[in-house]
Amino acid sequence: MDKRAVCIISGGMDSALAATIAKNEGYEIIGVHFNYGQRTQRKELECYKKIIEDLGATKSHIIDLPFFKEIGSTALIGDELDVPTDGIKPGVPVTYVPFRNGIFLSIAAAIAQKYDAQALYIGVVEEDSSGYPDCRESFINTMNSSINLGLRDETELKIETPLIHMSKEEIVANSIELDVKLEHTWSCYKNSDKACGLCDSCRLRLKGFEKIGIKDPIVYC
Amino acid sequence: MDKRAVCIISGGMDSALAATIAKNEGYEIIGVHFNYGQRTQRKELECYKKIIEDLGATKSHIIDLPFFKEIGSTALIGDELDVPTDGIKPGVPVTYVPFRNGIFLSIAAAIAQKYDAQALYIGVVEEDSSGYPDCRESFINTMNSSINLGLRDETELKIETPLIHMSKEEIVANSIELDVKLEHTWSCYKNSDKACGLCDSCRLRLKGFEKIGIKDPIVYC
Repeated sequence: MDKRAVCIISGGMDSALAATIAKNEGYEIIGVHFNYGQRTQRKELECYKKIIEDLGATKSHIIDLPFFKEIGSTALIGDELDVPTDGIKPGVPVTYVPFRNGIFLSIAAAIAQKYDAQALYIGVVEEDSSGYPDCRESFINTMNSSINLGLRDETELKIETPLIHMSKEEIVANSIELDVKLEHTWSCYKNSDKACGLCDSCRLRLKGFEKIGIKDPIVYC
Repeated sequence: MDKRAVCIISGGMDSALAATIAKNEGYEIIGVHFNYGQRTQRKELECYKKIIEDLGATKSHIIDLPFFKEIGSTALIGDELDVPTDGIKPGVPVTYVPFRNGIFLSIAAAIAQKYDAQALYIGVVEEDSSGYPDCRESFINTMNSSINLGLRDETELKIETPLIHMSKEEIVANSIELDVKLEHTWSCYKNSDKACGLCDSCRLRLKGFEKIGIKDPIVYC
């Protein structure tokens, strides 16, 4: 097989679907997962491992980024700020991790060059998401140009964002259609055993399931 | 003081000069150094510490990036490839670390947002350099746009590359004029005690000193 895609897989529903779409496009899957000190790191890693097994990934890189703890400024890491549970508000939420996707894409680009991969899949969602600036399509497109300018001239890497204009409802529906094992994914920002059901990420996930009238297979508090 | 600059400081001559220029522009200096498993990591870190002391930096982040060893594909890390010592050749050399500056700039951008810094200084040199794609001005400019799109809307960060069009000769001359302590900098890719004098980086450095007729204060084999 000659077509290779580096897939950033967080353990969540969105990136699991994005990687499954890559697989269905005929790509050999190279999984990349980041441990950046997030609250649910252990659980997300566990899900990542199940997802790459489901996908039959041929390579996997689990990347430790201990420095995020030092940079802080986000409710997803450390105990300085709480994860909000009182509903989704307009604007950039406190769970925003500064330039996280920029850092993830940069490292994934280096991995893509190692394997001569042609595509880099990331499960960002612009429309129905939490309002993170690094999930915008304009950011992804410019970052794609930066990556191709910063890599060797013979490298031509395409960032693929198949979910960018999907709603959570469409993500759940597509995941079911493509047999993504949603019981192997995790979205909660707070808990690693039973999902809280109240953080923004749980709310978005639950809304997606509710709208298509299907029960989420993971356990909630 | 209100003007803050994040300065990526490797321990080499170029980034020491770039950070000194930032200081002279009136910026409060936030130093950032990366340990990425490079051969001369210990020596570079030692130089970084001296340089930030010389600059009176108010903050410092030493960022460990252990994953570079795993990605490999460069003579600067590990024992797979040797550092060439037979002169500078055209094209991208084997010492190129895939997307290194993209990764460095992404992490530095997150740090800049933490401190509400307005500028990000990096000592890249396009003209008289080793031919690394991630030292090109076109890359830096596009990366600057990516960073501003991926950070909060209220953040406006400018990547400053005061050395990008300088020759090594001009870099040495400017360093001397601005009292950069060149004895606190290190350029050799191979050795940490006495510089080899033969790798591309030593050759470029020595050429710079030679052209202005000054002796390099560091020790060579």
